[in-house]
Amino acid sequence: MNQDYIKPDNWSVIEEGFDTEQVKSSESLFSIGNGAMGQRANFEEQYSGPTFQGSYIAGVYYPDKTRVGWWKNGYPEYFAKVLNAPNWIGINIFVNGEPLDLFKCKSIANFRRELNMKEGWYKRTFEATLQNNITLRVESIRFLSLDLDEIGAIEYAVTPLNASAEINFGPYLDSGITNEDTNWDDKFWETVSVNHQEDRAFIISHTMKTNFFVCTFMQTQLALNGKVLTQEKKIDTRSNYIEFQYENEVDQGETLTLTKWGGYTVSLNHDKGQLEKVSNDLLEEASEMGFEKLLEKQKQAWKKIWDMADITIEGDVQAQQGIRFNIFHLNQTYLGKDARLNIGPKGFTGEKYGGSTYWDTEAYCIPFYMATKDQKVARNLLEYRYQHLEKAIENATKLGFTNGAALYPMVTMNGEECHNEWEITFEEIHRNGAIAFAIFNYHRFTGDYSYIPEKGLEVLIGIARFWHQRATYSDAKKKYVILGVTGPNEYENNVNNNFYTNYVAQWCISYAIENIRKIKNEFDSDYTRIITKTKLSNSEIDAWKLVADNMYFPYSEERQIYLQQDGFLDKELITVSDLPKDQRPINQKWSWDRILRSPYIKQADVLQCIYFFEDNFTDEELKRHFDFYEPFTVHESSLSPCVHSIQAAKLGRMEQAYEFYLRTSRLDLDDYNHEVHEGLHITSMAGTWMSIVEGFGGMRVMDNMLSFSPKIPDQWDAYSFKINFRDQTLKINVDQNKTSFQLDGSAELQILVNDALVSIKPNNLVTI
Amino acid sequence: MNQDYIKPDNWSVIEEGFDTEQVKSSESLFSIGNGAMGQRANFEEQYSGPTFQGSYIAGVYYPDKTRVGWWKNGYPEYFAKVLNAPNWIGINIFVNGEPLDLFKCKSIANFRRELNMKEGWYKRTFEATLQNNITLRVESIRFLSLDLDEIGAIEYAVTPLNASAEINFGPYLDSGITNEDTNWDDKFWETVSVNHQEDRAFIISHTMKTNFFVCTFMQTQLALNGKVLTQEKKIDTRSNYIEFQYENEVDQGETLTLTKWGGYTVSLNHDKGQLEKVSNDLLEEASEMGFEKLLEKQKQAWKKIWDMADITIEGDVQAQQGIRFNIFHLNQTYLGKDARLNIGPKGFTGEKYGGSTYWDTEAYCIPFYMATKDQKVARNLLEYRYQHLEKAIENATKLGFTNGAALYPMVTMNGEECHNEWEITFEEIHRNGAIAFAIFNYHRFTGDYSYIPEKGLEVLIGIARFWHQRATYSDAKKKYVILGVTGPNEYENNVNNNFYTNYVAQWCISYAIENIRKIKNEFDSDYTRIITKTKLSNSEIDAWKLVADNMYFPYSEERQIYLQQDGFLDKELITVSDLPKDQRPINQKWSWDRILRSPYIKQADVLQCIYFFEDNFTDEELKRHFDFYEPFTVHESSLSPCVHSIQAAKLGRMEQAYEFYLRTSRLDLDDYNHEVHEGLHITSMAGTWMSIVEGFGGMRVMDNMLSFSPKIPDQWDAYSFKINFRDQTLKINVDQNKTSFQLDGSAELQILVNDALVSIKPNNLVTI
Repeated sequence: MNQDYIKPDNWSVIEEGFDTEQVKSSESLFSIGNGAMGQRANFEEQYSGPTFQGSYIAGVYYPDKTRVGWWKNGYPEYFAKVLNAPNWIGINIFVNGEPLDLFKCKSIANFRRELNMKEGWYKRTFEATLQNNITLRVESIRFLSLDLDEIGAIEYAVTPLNASAEINFGPYLDSGITNEDTNWDDKFWETVSVNHQEDRAFIISHTMKTNFFVCTFMQTQLALNGKVLTQEKKIDTRSNYIEFQYENEVDQGETLTLTKWGGYTVSLNHDKGQLEKVSNDLLEEASEMGFEKLLEKQKQAWKKIWDMADITIEGDVQAQQGIRFNIFHLNQTYLGKDARLNIGPKGFTGEKYGGSTYWDTEAYCIPFYMATKDQKVARNLLEYRYQHLEKAIENATKLGFTNGAALYPMVTMNGEECHNEWEITFEEIHRNGAIAFAIFNYHRFTGDYSYIPEKGLEVLIGIARFWHQRATYSDAKKKYVILGVTGPNEYENNVNNNFYTNYVAQWCISYAIENIRKIKNEFDSDYTRIITKTKLSNSEIDAWKLVADNMYFPYSEERQIYLQQDGFLDKELITVSDLPKDQRPINQKWSWDRILRSPYIKQADVLQCIYFFEDNFTDEELKRHFDFYEPFTVHESSLSPCVHSIQAAKLGRMEQAYEFYLRTSRLDLDDYNHEVHEGLHITSMAGTWMSIVEGFGGMRVMDNMLSFSPKIPDQWDAYSFKINFRDQTLKINVDQNKTSFQLDGSAELQILVNDALVSIKPNNLVTI
Repeated sequence: MNQDYIKPDNWSVIEEGFDTEQVKSSESLFSIGNGAMGQRANFEEQYSGPTFQGSYIAGVYYPDKTRVGWWKNGYPEYFAKVLNAPNWIGINIFVNGEPLDLFKCKSIANFRRELNMKEGWYKRTFEATLQNNITLRVESIRFLSLDLDEIGAIEYAVTPLNASAEINFGPYLDSGITNEDTNWDDKFWETVSVNHQEDRAFIISHTMKTNFFVCTFMQTQLALNGKVLTQEKKIDTRSNYIEFQYENEVDQGETLTLTKWGGYTVSLNHDKGQLEKVSNDLLEEASEMGFEKLLEKQKQAWKKIWDMADITIEGDVQAQQGIRFNIFHLNQTYLGKDARLNIGPKGFTGEKYGGSTYWDTEAYCIPFYMATKDQKVARNLLEYRYQHLEKAIENATKLGFTNGAALYPMVTMNGEECHNEWEITFEEIHRNGAIAFAIFNYHRFTGDYSYIPEKGLEVLIGIARFWHQRATYSDAKKKYVILGVTGPNEYENNVNNNFYTNYVAQWCISYAIENIRKIKNEFDSDYTRIITKTKLSNSEIDAWKLVADNMYFPYSEERQIYLQQDGFLDKELITVSDLPKDQRPINQKWSWDRILRSPYIKQADVLQCIYFFEDNFTDEELKRHFDFYEPFTVHESSLSPCVHSIQAAKLGRMEQAYEFYLRTSRLDLDDYNHEVHEGLHITSMAGTWMSIVEGFGGMRVMDNMLSFSPKIPDQWDAYSFKINFRDQTLKINVDQNKTSFQLDGSAELQILVNDALVSIKPNNLVTI
């Protein structure tokens, strides 16, 4: 942890002082994005120190040939990789012929970064003294427009402080970039053309294999003391690079400013022959508007997001900064406009994990997007999986399943599996459960049933078929068992009868059958279409039901708890608190076999099941299971603390809930896992939001009603959040004494507060 | 299977007719070796068709940087690879300027290969018509000397049949070779110097990282119609290549013969500055002797081996050829002269599996070497592990074990683990058991106890410490359990309480304690030395004993069988005979998860335990377990059929035993697994020997006595084998009616035949 590295602030992430050791971490933390693209906070000017260059375009990936030590049948041929895209932010700066490079300066003073989350921009200021003794003040501000989401803008201002100097700006585009993560050092990009036209430049390049065509573009404008300069430039054009070179004599104290617009247009969204034209039109529009106006629109757009999604916390700046950091990055990553996109675990902040979509989306992210955005956004996330149903059926077929059984991939870009560890790829099959659960969850929250007859039921049928085939009958147990799986707790591999997996399997089948019946009765033409397409028969449904009705669950009579898997109680049950500190994190200190035979849990497993299906468990049962499993949980997954925070809050253990909350909300800001330089943990950020809304706020949906049981940590004076519920917005304020509700909408809303029915009229403050 | 490809013959492996599709398979099958080096049966002349070039030097390897998809803590950094060594056999041949290349000839007639196993040479004859219409007869004979084991010789004779021709011979050395198996395309060899001197040439090269220095050398001599020619040659010298070029006009019907001596001297055996000199001396010695004399000595040396190791089978040529093929290759691979060497699973016939030493050595190979060679050979194999004890302790330490616990590597060259699949590397820990068992087995067979106080006990202590620490106490079972292992059946991973593993763990501890006590009483100074070195205390031994005495074994009361692991009976118990043929081999047809949750067994597991410790199980128990497990066994390991053959014979199921025997003995000749092109299955060849001696012959050692219960398959008229037992040789002949014993030695020998005591006097035929 590096608690003191980021300054506490309600609305901004702030770093003060230049430390080369922190550059890669800051590049992650200060990342910016607009849902369509994003970039690490790399410097515009040259930097010869350790840096991790990254600029990413949503949906643009490369299928990198799988690399494993020992091939197993069924491994996918490719791993879809997030690609570092051509660089459009670069600006070479020479001062009397010496390059500005913060790694080589004589001294650097007043270095400061600010990521203004309220307004959606990133600023860097510093004073650098070069080896030639010229001291410059530099101020650079950058943002990726939410309005014109293919464009970003930079204003880069340089003021020589102690002498006049010749200052040369060299803004450039560079498509000769590489990935840090590559299996075989393949070439990922091929440049097609490098063009320029007046103050604009364009590089067309395409990804290898996937053939995404991308136009990377820029426009530049120079001003002295705010007055636009028109001057000649030199142009350096190479096979995958173009630079405009401006030479200026700048007097001491004068400020030379380069405004640079840049970004990408992509063949995903445009005719590939039109990319340069589209880019040119975009630059026309943006430069016409000017930097200030575009920034003004940026502030308005972020205001609109915050108006709906903000959570306030009073009396605890670190907690406030943490939750806003999470909400901000979720919105930078995914805005829900495009059903082809999804939420990558690292968003646009790093390459790690490749692929874009994990079960994180369904298990952790959907509730956030449902409650803070128009419900179409969550529906888009569901449709993403519907679009991949055929691929999920193919994937199951490769593993020996038949008859339309669907196994959704562990990791994917386009619906094809791209992961390659047998214990995960082939065995972490519970992911199917989360995908079905998300359909249920969407309907429960939005009340919109239409998705299920239109699309969702086909997904549910494919999933039910999978579970039916995957369970086998144990003659010894006289029950159906599910052998050889990895549950949510990935610190167990190839176990039998993982409780979570068996439970979701049973639930998926029952939920599919329930919906088949409902659609048969209520959506005649959908029913006919689906039955025709899937060739589903009554006898097949009976066979599913037999499995669901006779599913085996490992249980300890003595302890009155469900067991995480068969044989769990054979382990040496030493709690985490009795584990020497120097043995942790176990995933860095222990060999894999030792982790596997230990009782230690990476993230909620049985408790995840109780979280999803809490209505089926009593509070007493929750307490028993929490008391048994949490002490063995090492929370070495970013997805672990949030569920535990919610459950601790439910059990009234507010100290523990608060502790888990801090851990989830400041995971990256405080770099708990010493890996923030690789990128941020985007999907777990949605878990942070759940910790407050579902944990402290106790929000649930029951029988088409919002329900709350508000609690507040001692450390806070008050907190508030908003819920977009069926086209009305309810704001909830909780302080140490009371809870108030305010409705922005047109119709009276019935809610439950601590199980009591409360009526909220629009624009009427109700305090309880 | 390609049953007809190799001609049946009692003493030779014969191929007739040229088929480019078979070249790589034949390169494996016709491999030659002499324990110190070996080579695939590559052609001497150019060949542009598909070929797998391989020449290997015992003990020379390269630590190739590990390549895995997903790194797990504790993985070794390197995988020791068997290295393709510089080529010394190559001879370029040009006929009127056209290269002789069997892939490009107009036609090829009378192509024949013979590997004469009786005499230890390999011959190839053919008539080739080149594109220029010259027809040549070629006869090439090659062997690697057993007497001078750093040298080999080739006699390559060419006769133009239909015209006179200019025939140019270009014998060469080439150190610019590569491996097929390489993780990162590293350069494995660096050439130091290329020299020549009269008719000799030398290339000094060294391996990267390991720095084994090797002198590859040759001497050449030309003869026309048997008359040695002295003539000028051209010399083509490059940075890692040297070729002598001889030009000759050869009249139609005349025979031009090139004799080439070549081989390697290695810094493992000589001062590295002396390699060229040593090589020169060797060439002097060999060429002085001449090709014929060296070949004569080869025949004598092989006669000596066969005199001890031969097994005869009458009335079944395929079976006879099979067993000799196995015995021949075992002797080509390892002769037991050097305790630094061991028996690689592919010997000198391919690269696959890298490393040299697996548990195969102790579990399968030692009995063969014990009974057919001087007992020093088996002792050398034991000492190999003693020499690696420190590394085994290091290996265990890396996995979190303490206090001198030793875990021998799964795969190794120098004692360090080099495998990298967590389920094998970290979990297939039963290998420790085979290493201890070999010590017991050696003592039981040879009666030589001295190894244990001198060296073996330290190994036993390290192993006992490992098992003591690796077992954990299950409060639920009130027993010690061993969680998360892979047993001999690698089609199960990360299982709990694998019966075999738990049994050997218990046995290892008990055997260690038994020997500690014996050595305490009988070998005072050894005891003091060992206790001082290992710091072993009585309380530690008590702690071991507690684990051994309270070990858990999974058992089915209903079926009265030990279970392969916890939960085995939860599987869908469909036998292999009910598995559709198109689903097999399952390791090629099924994804890994499907294999794991199936009941199918790759090789003997519970049955391997009963095989090792058969005195502890009744015949009734063997029958019950065999009847339960064999029907689920797919025998997809080359090590599987032999154990089953032995047990089937013991149960009197001779048809089944014979079927398993054929499968093990002709595994490579008939290419059951479609992979013989990659190399031969050397270690399983020892299992073939056991199938006859222990299976059909029923040989055991009981109370310092040889015991037999001879049986014979209906398909055979008779068979015989010899056993070197405590410096006397007993020959056993079994036919359909009787068994006879003949002793070559000086002292009367008491043996058991079908449990009855029989006295055998030297040189006296006893028939029963």
